[in-house]
Amino acid sequence: MRIPKAIQDLAESFQRLPGVGPKSAQRLTFYLLHVPQIQLDKFSESLLNLKKNIIICKQCFNIGEEEICSVCSDPYRDKSTLCVVEDAMDVIAIEKSGKYKGHYHVLHGLIDPLNSLGPDDIYIPQLLERVRKSASADASVRQGEIKEIIIATNPTMEGEATAMYLSRELKTSREGGIKVTRIGHGLPVGADIEYADDITLSRALEGRREY
Amino acid sequence: MRIPKAIQDLAESFQRLPGVGPKSAQRLTFYLLHVPQIQLDKFSESLLNLKKNIIICKQCFNIGEEEICSVCSDPYRDKSTLCVVEDAMDVIAIEKSGKYKGHYHVLHGLIDPLNSLGPDDIYIPQLLERVRKSASADASVRQGEIKEIIIATNPTMEGEATAMYLSRELKTSREGGIKVTRIGHGLPVGADIEYADDITLSRALEGRREY
Repeated sequence: MRIPKAIQDLAESFQRLPGVGPKSAQRLTFYLLHVPQIQLDKFSESLLNLKKNIIICKQCFNIGEEEICSVCSDPYRDKSTLCVVEDAMDVIAIEKSGKYKGHYHVLHGLIDPLNSLGPDDIYIPQLLERVRKSASADASVRQGEIKEIIIATNPTMEGEATAMYLSRELKTSREGGIKVTRIGHGLPVGADIEYADDITLSRALEGRREY
Repeated sequence: MRIPKAIQDLAESFQRLPGVGPKSAQRLTFYLLHVPQIQLDKFSESLLNLKKNIIICKQCFNIGEEEICSVCSDPYRDKSTLCVVEDAMDVIAIEKSGKYKGHYHVLHGLIDPLNSLGPDDIYIPQLLERVRKSASADASVRQGEIKEIIIATNPTMEGEATAMYLSRELKTSREGGIKVTRIGHGLPVGADIEYADDITLSRALEGRREY
C-alpha cells in the first residue's frame, strides 16, 4: 500500500520535533484526520505566525511582542536584581513561582565547548555591557543600578560552566560592588533522601540553612 | 510576564493532540522558535492540506489519494481474502509485515456501547453488503468471490465485541460458505512467559499449534 503524500508530509514534520518518533508521528497524523478542518486551519496558522509575531527584547533578550518586553517595561519591578537564565522557558517557570520581582537576562544558550559554543555565541557580552552601563558614573547611559545578579542556569555540566565563567567575568568587570549569587541547589520539594543522587545530596548539605 | 499570544496559540494547538500535556506543548512551541521559517511553512502547509488531499476508498474505506485506493486497484492482490481492521493505521501495520496479500475493509471505529457507537455507526453495513454482493449469483454486481474474512480488530473489549458481532452477522448472512477467522492471539515475539498476563497466556494456550 502506498501511504498518501499528505500523510507522509505531515508525519515527517511531526517527526522533526524533539521526542517524537516515527510511530508517534504517524499516530498524531492519523488523529488529525478525524478533527474538524477549522482546528487544522488554526493549528496551521499559529505555526505560520509563530516567529513573525515574536520579538526579542532589546534589553533582556527575553521574547515578547514589543521591542522592550513586558518585564522590562513594568515600572513596579525591581531594577536592582537581575536573574540570568538560559532561555525564555526558564523565565516563564520562574514567573510562575510568583516569588521573583526583579529583571531578567536571557542568554539563549549555554557555554558548550563540545558543540563549539563559546561565551560570545550567546548573550554574555550584552550582559557584561549591561552591567558595565548600570555601574557607569555617566548618568546618561546608566540604566538603573544593579545590586545583585542571580545566576540561574541549570545545574548541568554546561549550566555550571556558564555560571562559573559568568561569576568570574562579573567579579573582574564590576565596578560598584555588585553581589553575584547562584540559585540554590538541593533536594526538590517532595523528594526522598533515600533516592537522591550523591551530588544533589552533597549540594543540599553545602546549601543548608540555619533555622 | 505576559506570554506572547503567538506562543499561547501554538501551545494550545499542540495541547489538543493526544498525549501532549501543557509542559510538552510549551517545550515543542519553544523548540519551533529556533527552527528556520521554511520548516514552519512546510509544517503549516502539510497541516492545511492533510484532509484536502485524502479520499476514503469507495470499496474498502481505506484512506488514499484516489476514489479506489492503491490496494483495491492492485490486480496482483488476492481478492478472495478480506482483512477487517479498525482503522487505516492497522492497514499500514499489516502491510509493513509484508505477509498479507489480500484486500482490506476498514471499519473506522469499533462497536462501543459506552460511547453509543453501534454497528451502523461504523462501516459494518457496507462490509455486509460487500460480502453479499461478492456471493451474489448475479455476475453484474459480483465484485470477485470472497473466500475468507479475517477479523483483525484489537484484542480489547470493544475489539472483541465487534469481532463477535461480525462473526455472528457474517455467519447468518453469508451464502457461499465463506470462512470467517480471527487474527491469532498469544505471546508477542520477544515476550517473557513469566511476565505475561493471565488472559494473554490462556489465549496463547488455546491458540497452540502442532509442529
